[in-house]
Amino acid sequence: MRINDVEIEDTYAEAFPMYFGRVLITAVTRRWALASAQSAVGGGGGATLSESGLECEVAPKDTPDGRPGYIILVGRRFRKDVTPAIPAAIRNNVVPVPTAAAFNAMPDKMTDYFVEIENTPVQLFGDSYEEIVEKYGRKMYKIPRMDGFFYTDTKYGVRRGVGGGNFLIMGESQAATILSAEVAIDAIKQVLHVRAPTRPAASGSKVGGRVYKDAYATTNDKYCACIADKVEDTRIPDNVNCILEIVIDGLTLNGVKKAIAVGIKAATKMPGIKKITAVNFEGALGKINIGLYEALQN
Amino acid sequence: MRINDVEIEDTYAEAFPMYFGRVLITAVTRRWALASAQSAVGGGGGATLSESGLECEVAPKDTPDGRPGYIILVGRRFRKDVTPAIPAAIRNNVVPVPTAAAFNAMPDKMTDYFVEIENTPVQLFGDSYEEIVEKYGRKMYKIPRMDGFFYTDTKYGVRRGVGGGNFLIMGESQAATILSAEVAIDAIKQVLHVRAPTRPAASGSKVGGRVYKDAYATTNDKYCACIADKVEDTRIPDNVNCILEIVIDGLTLNGVKKAIAVGIKAATKMPGIKKITAVNFEGALGKINIGLYEALQN
Amino acid sequence: MRINDVEIEDTYAEAFPMYFGRVLITAVTRRWALASAQSAVGGGGGATLSESGLECEVAPKDTPDGRPGYIILVGRRFRKDVTPAIPAAIRNNVVPVPTAAAFNAMPDKMTDYFVEIENTPVQLFGDSYEEIVEKYGRKMYKIPRMDGFFYTDTKYGVRRGVGGGNFLIMGESQAATILSAEVAIDAIKQVLHVRAPTRPAASGSKVGGRVYKDAYATTNDKYCACIADKVEDTRIPDNVNCILEIVIDGLTLNGVKKAIAVGIKAATKMPGIKKITAVNFEGALGKINIGLYEALQN
Amino acid sequence: MRINDVEIEDTYAEAFPMYFGRVLITAVTRRWALASAQSAVGGGGGATLSESGLECEVAPKDTPDGRPGYIILVGRRFRKDVTPAIPAAIRNNVVPVPTAAAFNAMPDKMTDYFVEIENTPVQLFGDSYEEIVEKYGRKMYKIPRMDGFFYTDTKYGVRRGVGGGNFLIMGESQAATILSAEVAIDAIKQVLHVRAPTRPAASGSKVGGRVYKDAYATTNDKYCACIADKVEDTRIPDNVNCILEIVIDGLTLNGVKKAIAVGIKAATKMPGIKKITAVNFEGALGKINIGLYEALQN
Repeated sequence: MRINDVEIEDTYAEAFPMYFGRVLITAVTRRWALASAQSAVGGGGGATLSESGLECEVAPKDTPDGRPGYIILVGRRFRKDVTPAIPAAIRNNVVPVPTAAAFNAMPDKMTDYFVEIENTPVQLFGDSYEEIVEKYGRKMYKIPRMDGFFYTDTKYGVRRGVGGGNFLIMGESQAATILSAEVAIDAIKQVLHVRAPTRPAASGSKVGGRVYKDAYATTNDKYCACIADKVEDTRIPDNVNCILEIVIDGLTLNGVKKAIAVGIKAATKMPGIKKITAVNFEGALGKINIGLYEALQN
Repeated sequence: MRINDVEIEDTYAEAFPMYFGRVLITAVTRRWALASAQSAVGGGGGATLSESGLECEVAPKDTPDGRPGYIILVGRRFRKDVTPAIPAAIRNNVVPVPTAAAFNAMPDKMTDYFVEIENTPVQLFGDSYEEIVEKYGRKMYKIPRMDGFFYTDTKYGVRRGVGGGNFLIMGESQAATILSAEVAIDAIKQVLHVRAPTRPAASGSKVGGRVYKDAYATTNDKYCACIADKVEDTRIPDNVNCILEIVIDGLTLNGVKKAIAVGIKAATKMPGIKKITAVNFEGALGKINIGLYEALQN
Repeated sequence: MRINDVEIEDTYAEAFPMYFGRVLITAVTRRWALASAQSAVGGGGGATLSESGLECEVAPKDTPDGRPGYIILVGRRFRKDVTPAIPAAIRNNVVPVPTAAAFNAMPDKMTDYFVEIENTPVQLFGDSYEEIVEKYGRKMYKIPRMDGFFYTDTKYGVRRGVGGGNFLIMGESQAATILSAEVAIDAIKQVLHVRAPTRPAASGSKVGGRVYKDAYATTNDKYCACIADKVEDTRIPDNVNCILEIVIDGLTLNGVKKAIAVGIKAATKMPGIKKITAVNFEGALGKINIGLYEALQN
Repeated sequence: MRINDVEIEDTYAEAFPMYFGRVLITAVTRRWALASAQSAVGGGGGATLSESGLECEVAPKDTPDGRPGYIILVGRRFRKDVTPAIPAAIRNNVVPVPTAAAFNAMPDKMTDYFVEIENTPVQLFGDSYEEIVEKYGRKMYKIPRMDGFFYTDTKYGVRRGVGGGNFLIMGESQAATILSAEVAIDAIKQVLHVRAPTRPAASGSKVGGRVYKDAYATTNDKYCACIADKVEDTRIPDNVNCILEIVIDGLTLNGVKKAIAVGIKAATKMPGIKKITAVNFEGALGKINIGLYEALQN
C-alpha cells in the first residue's frame, strides 16, 4: 500500500495490554494545571517506558470545580504496578503544586476496576487531618496542605487498555524525519483516549539483546542506518538515513488503531519520507497485533 | 531581622549531604535540548523527592559539540542511589530524544568521584555495536540509534553537595504567596551550581507522621493555615493564610546559602508577605544546618 | 449584586461597533501556525488599541488543508481601516512564515461583506506570478514564495461586531488582581467568536485628557489607586490598591456579553477582589452600552 | 568557499543604516517581562519590515530595579520614524502590562543621540499626574497607572546601526531548510547587540516589482524554486527546493557581520543544505555591502 506515495509495509505493531488511570488535574489557572501535568509527564515517551502522558486540556466549564484542567493517563504494563503508580503520580506531581486538585476522569463505562486512595501516600500525607467530604457531587478527600486544602477523588478508575502501539517513520534525512514525526504527533493529538506522545523516540529498541543476552532492551540494530553495513539482517531501505518511532498507548484498541492511522497519514505528507513500518518481536513483547493495513481502514 | 519590612525568623533550614551528577544535554536545536532536559526534570520539586532539576542553559559556543544545550543536576540523597540514577536519567531522557547527546559537565575541581557508563543500561543499549571513540577532545561512547549515533561521555563526575536547603514564604493570601514564590524562583535562577526549582512546593512535609507513625513523610501540620485551629503547636502567624516552600539543592553549601539569601530578598518584595522561616526537624532529616541569618550575610 | 461575595457595580461597559476579519492560519506543524498567529497578535490588548487577537486553535481534521491551525480576529474600529488591515495582517505575519497559509474563517451567515485580496500587498507580492486556483474546494491565490507556494483565500468576510467590551477587577493587592485577571482570561478562552485577551490591561485610559486636552487617551485617573488622594472624583473603594481591565471584543454582542459574564464570575473567585465595575465615558467612546447586570443574566 | 561542504557564494548582503532604540523591559516576574517584550516583537521578522526584536534576557541582579528583564531593539530605517517609534513601542507594549517598567538600555558610548519621552503619548498618558523623579540613580517619569506607578526613563539613546543584514539558506527540502534556519537562529542568539530573528523569512522579496512597477516589495522570483521554470534569470541551483532568509539587524556593523558568520557556520551543519548566498539589489536597497567572505573571516 502507498499513501501520499510513501510505501506502507504490510506488517503489524506488536502491542500488549496496559493498565491506565485517567487523572484530571485542575488548578487556579491553566498555567498551574499544566505545570502539574507536565511534571507528571516527564520521563515518558519510549516504548520501553510505561509512564504518564498528557491526553488533553479541559475547559473550566467542563471540570468538576470549574477550573482549567489537563487530563493525564497514568499507565503501567502490569496491574500490580498501576495500583501504586496512580497515587504516586498524584502524590509527586499534583500534591506539591499550589492550588492543584486531582479528579478521577475515567468514564464509568470504561472503568474495569478502581484503585483506592486509602492507605496510599496520598491519604497518609494527611496524617489523620484528612477527611472524606461530599464536594462537586462526589466523595473527595480533603487534605491539609500549606496553601489550603488539597482535594482528590477517593478512588480512580482503571482500564485495561493497549500499550506499545507504534509505527516507524523512515526518512532520507534527520530533518525530514523529525518534521514528519512532529506532523504525526500534532495529528494524533486530535484522537481522544490516547496518550499523545510529546516527542518521537529515536531510541527504538528490541526486547533483550543479541550479544548482551541479559539486557532488558537494546538498540534495534536492524533499524539503525548508521550501522546498516554491519548488520546482516538490516531492514534499512535505500536512501533511508534516519528512523523515528511514534509510540501510542491508549484506553481502547480502537483508539490506538485510529491514532496509528491518523499519524501515518500525516507523517507521509512530508517529502523525504521513504517508508512506514512498525516493530514487532515474534510475540516476545505482547500478544496484540495491530496490522497497519487494518488500522488504516479506519 | 526584617527585610523589606518582612520578619525573617532566626531559624535554620535542616539540610543533608546529597550526591549530584551534572549532565549537559545538547541537541540540534535549543528546543530539542530543552525537550530532553524537561523530560528529565519531570517529577522533581518537593523536599521529599530527590530527582533531577534544571541548572542553566548553555550557548552553542560553550558546548563541546557547538550545539545548544541545557545542564541538569541529577541528585540523590545516597551515594548508592546516584550511581544508577545518572545513567538512568541519560537512558530515559536523552537517549530517546532525536539528535540529543550527553556530556559530563561537572567541573574537575568539583568532582569527588566518577560514575562509569560501562555496564549500565546506556552502554548495554549498544548491544556490542557501541564503541569508545575520541571526540570533542574527550573519550566518548558512540552508540547506534535509529536517527544516527548517540554520544555520551564514558564517565560522569559526582559531587557531594547539599540537599534540602529551604525557606518558607508565609503570606496573607494564595495570590501574594504564589507570586512571591515566582519572584524568588526567578531570582534564584541567577545562582550557578544550584538546582533551580521549577515551582514552589505547597506540600511542605515533616519526616514521618504524628499519627501515621509508619508514613515516610506527612503534611507539615504546623504550617497548614487551613487547620491552624486544630493543631496545638501551630506556627501560623496572624493574617497568614498560605505558605509555600522553596526547596534548594546544589553542588556547594555556599551556592545553596547564596540561593537562599537571594530568594528570601526577592520574596519579601511582594506586598502581603508576612514572614519568612525555614523548616527543620531536630536532626531527623539531616545534619547540615543553614541558618537564615548567616545565609543572609551573603 | 454580589457574586462570590464580591460587589458588582450596577454600571455598563461602553462599547462600539468594530469591524473584524476572521483568519485561519495553518502551517506544517502547530508550532509554526502558532508562530504566525502570535506574530499577528503582538501589540494588541489595550482598549485604545484595535488590532489582532487569537480566538482559538483548530485541529488538523477541521481545517481545509488538514494541517494544524489557529484563528485570529483582525479588528479595527472603522470599516475603512479594516479593509487594509486584513491583507496587512496576512502580508506581515503569514506570508513570511515557512509553510503558512491563510484562510477566510468567517462563517457565511456571520459575514456582512467581503474584503478582496486583489490589489493589496498580498496579491501584489506575486508580481504577476500569482494565480487563482481551485483548491480545498475554494478559490485561492497561489503565490510563489521562497519555500514553495503560499496559499490564501481571495476574499475575507468582514463582520460588524463589538469592540470595547470590558470590566475592571478591583483588588486589594497587585498579586490578587493579577491572578484574578489570569483566572478570568482562562475562563474567557472558552467563549467562541471572541478575541481572547492575552493579558489584562494595567493602562486603563479615558478618552482624551482633562489637562492635556489634545491627547488621544490618557490615564483613567479615577481608577488609579496610587493617586487616589489627588483625584477629587476618585472611584477607588476602600482597601483597593490595584485595578486591571479585561478588554473583550468579539463578533457578536451576545458573545461579548457572555465573555464578560464568564470573566466576572471567574474573577470574583479570587480572595482579595473587592469590587467589579466597568468603564464608560458618557458616550464619548461608543453607543453600545453593555450593562453588567444584564450580561450576568447569561 | 565551502563550509561543512556547503558552497558559500562570493556575494554580499545589501544593507542600510538603521536607527535603533534599546529598551530594557522589567516586570515583577520573567513571565510578565517576557509578555511585554513579546508583544513588542509581534509583526517583526521580514526584510521589508523594520520593527522591534528581542535581543536578550537580563538577570534581576543586572537590572536597575532588581527585577527580571528583557531587552528589545526598536528599529526603523529612518531617523524621523524611530523618534515616534520608541515611545510608541513603550506606550503600546509596556505601559499596558501589569508591573512592567521601561529603561533606556543603550550604552552611553554607543549612543548617537537621544529621543525624549516628553510630549509623546507616554508622557501625555499621565495627564499632568506624571512627575519626573530620581530613582534607581536615574531621572525617571513616574506615571499613574491602574496597578500602581509606571516608571520609564525620560530619554532613550538612539544609535545608527545596520539593517538588512541577511543570508539565504538553500536546501533540498523544506524540512532541511527549516531545521537549518532554526539552528542558525539559535546560534545567532549568542551575539550581543543584534536583533535575534524569531523565525526565518520565507517571503524573500525584491525592491519594487518587475511587472507590478508600483509595488513596494514583491516576491524575489529569482529565488523561488516553485517557479524556477518560469523565471529566466533564476538563481535556483540544482536540487534546491526551498530557500529561507535570515534577516539580521544590529547596533554595529561588526555585530551584524559576526551574526552572519555565526549563522552561516551553524546553518551549513545541516545535511541537505546545498548553498548559502545573500540578497542584494544593485544599491536599490542600501549602500552598505556586507561581503559574506569578509564576514566569515570573523
